[in-house]
Amino acid sequence: MGCLKVSSKSSPASVAGAIAGMIKDGVAVEIQAVGAGAVNQAVKAIAISRGFLSPIGIEIMCVPSFADIVIDGEYRTAIRFAVEPRYLRGTADGGETRS
Amino acid sequence: MGCLKVSSKSSPASVAGAIAGMIKDGVAVEIQAVGAGAVNQAVKAIAISRGFLSPIGIEIMCVPSFADIVIDGEYRTAIRFAVEPRYLRGTADGGETRS
Repeated sequence: MGCLKVSSKSSPASVAGAIAGMIKDGVAVEIQAVGAGAVNQAVKAIAISRGFLSPIGIEIMCVPSFADIVIDGEYRTAIRFAVEPRYLRGTADGGETRS
Repeated sequence: MGCLKVSSKSSPASVAGAIAGMIKDGVAVEIQAVGAGAVNQAVKAIAISRGFLSPIGIEIMCVPSFADIVIDGEYRTAIRFAVEPRYLRGTADGGETRS
């Protein structure tokens, strides 16, 4: 499981490249973002990475969740995105049927 | 396909309720957000709706994409989230194997 910490100053394209690389290598990706600006960059990165992976036949999806974390001794709520290849409905190997 | 427009002032819990209701009714949901604050509220809503749906055996996932829209005559880039039930790997009906 690769964990990427994204901030409001992260480049979505760079994060997208990292996501695509890990997904291609079969590594599940977790992205952590704290604050609206960071969450926005993370979502843009996921959307951009779809464009890198879709042409090679990999569709991805994400599952957002909350996580309580401590930054500099303060409790904050982070958003975590689990990004995974998308397995398509009714097929074991991601065949033709789109869910 | 139900389309929800989320702003930075939308209540994530209310949007989450709407998402959960539509998913329960078998309706695919699309959420549109413009700007970091709106994207953040949309992501929070999706995370909260997971908590409404998970206890009744429905797992969801989302796929973000960009959309060019026109607001008051100006071109803006929106983020759209397709929210759907998550079909689990290797099973046609969402069985035991988690992807």
